[in-house]
Amino acid sequence: MCVPGCHEAVHRALSRRGFFLKTAAVAAAAGAASLSTPLPRAFAQERKFSKAVDLTHTTWPEFPTFFNKVQLEIENLTTLEKDGFNTRKWHIMEHTGTHMDAPYHFSNDKESADRIPVESLVAPLAVINISDRAAKDPDAQLTAEDIKAWESKNGALPDRCCVAMNSGWDQHVKTEKFRNDMHFPGFHPDAIELLLTRNAVGIAVDTLSLDYGQSKDFKVHYSWLPAGRWGIEAVANLGQVPETGATVVIGGPKIEGATGGPTRVIALV
Amino acid sequence: MCVPGCHEAVHRALSRRGFFLKTAAVAAAAGAASLSTPLPRAFAQERKFSKAVDLTHTTWPEFPTFFNKVQLEIENLTTLEKDGFNTRKWHIMEHTGTHMDAPYHFSNDKESADRIPVESLVAPLAVINISDRAAKDPDAQLTAEDIKAWESKNGALPDRCCVAMNSGWDQHVKTEKFRNDMHFPGFHPDAIELLLTRNAVGIAVDTLSLDYGQSKDFKVHYSWLPAGRWGIEAVANLGQVPETGATVVIGGPKIEGATGGPTRVIALV
Repeated sequence: MCVPGCHEAVHRALSRRGFFLKTAAVAAAAGAASLSTPLPRAFAQERKFSKAVDLTHTTWPEFPTFFNKVQLEIENLTTLEKDGFNTRKWHIMEHTGTHMDAPYHFSNDKESADRIPVESLVAPLAVINISDRAAKDPDAQLTAEDIKAWESKNGALPDRCCVAMNSGWDQHVKTEKFRNDMHFPGFHPDAIELLLTRNAVGIAVDTLSLDYGQSKDFKVHYSWLPAGRWGIEAVANLGQVPETGATVVIGGPKIEGATGGPTRVIALV
Repeated sequence: MCVPGCHEAVHRALSRRGFFLKTAAVAAAAGAASLSTPLPRAFAQERKFSKAVDLTHTTWPEFPTFFNKVQLEIENLTTLEKDGFNTRKWHIMEHTGTHMDAPYHFSNDKESADRIPVESLVAPLAVINISDRAAKDPDAQLTAEDIKAWESKNGALPDRCCVAMNSGWDQHVKTEKFRNDMHFPGFHPDAIELLLTRNAVGIAVDTLSLDYGQSKDFKVHYSWLPAGRWGIEAVANLGQVPETGATVVIGGPKIEGATGGPTRVIALV
């Protein structure tokens, strides 16, 4: 499943996991929420909306993938003409198209996708736009400084929010530029260190990975997911939602033990 | 794929499709919305909520199915111990677990799941409770009279709503009683005839089929889906939401050409 060098890289990263897990533990001790924090039934504030924006790409068999391999095959089972109704079967790797990374993707003792509480799947959405920088440099990363700049403008990140990186990369989904020989934007580990001290429940990127394409150690995956938070990869249309004020609904898979899976992501504005 | 007698039944039903399509055409001509009706960007009214309720069952490989065959196999691809991260592959029939029936499931010229406009996936939720009747009679059906009774109590069905049948059947999902040798509740065709004259975009059931288990002609499927509306089967927890006032978000699959698929259904209350 892994491209050359990938297994070795994740093993090197694994040996450094202690540091990140410690960071996460410190954050938890400091009172930051994780998915397992007991939740109130109701949100802190009533939420309002008057339109919906689809943040999901259509997935087709050759949708670009991290490992550059086809991850979806579709088998026709019945047809309207022959059988009276159309049905199909998917053979699909969980991390395909617009999809979730559940905490269990990188941690055996954290939530699989089906076990994430629904209250954590409906979250205030903070969109951080780094598209100008990404247009000039495909290796751009969303940093702690970007989060602080967002907060200077919009106030503190909302409680239990999702922080989304808008790098403008969604527009490349149908071209080679989307994978771009593994040069695409992602979160910088220092942004994750900051977010672990906040009440963010999830992060989202409009690229193929929470870590930027050139990451060799997957620090973002190894610090964020084992802290009991989720990630969404390959979201679309972040340019159509405001940088603050929307609510995102994560239509993640509820298949037992899922490490993640295709996810319908809808913003309510 | 089909149980004995099923193909024959759907073919008989197909030969009667003319009637139902005509009904749908009349409804459309009368001005009722279908999914393809041009939509305003914003909802008619601002919507509010303060909590989320998950209307989705967890799906496991032996989740009960209409055809009584296993429809989900899960293949482990990588593990945290060996590879540094957990990933899996699903081999899944589209109509498994809590899932969508897209219009294309029963009509070649109507929307596949990926083509349903997002505005139709966020809908006011009307819950009609027939659980007392269903407890006494597993062949109970939600009728036009039930809809009229709901409207007498709650006012006209909201514009572009989803009408959900709460038969209490979700509680049986882990037992034989869920499929119950094809004795379970569903919508009655006369309810669909009425709904086709209203602005409902979708219907939902807490059982294995939009039609009741004993249906021999699948009239509900053949009249509702070709009219460009969607259905959701095997929803859960309808008893936890009010009969009016909630919004349902349909986290349906956005896989190209999908006849339906596993769907995260979340009510905002």
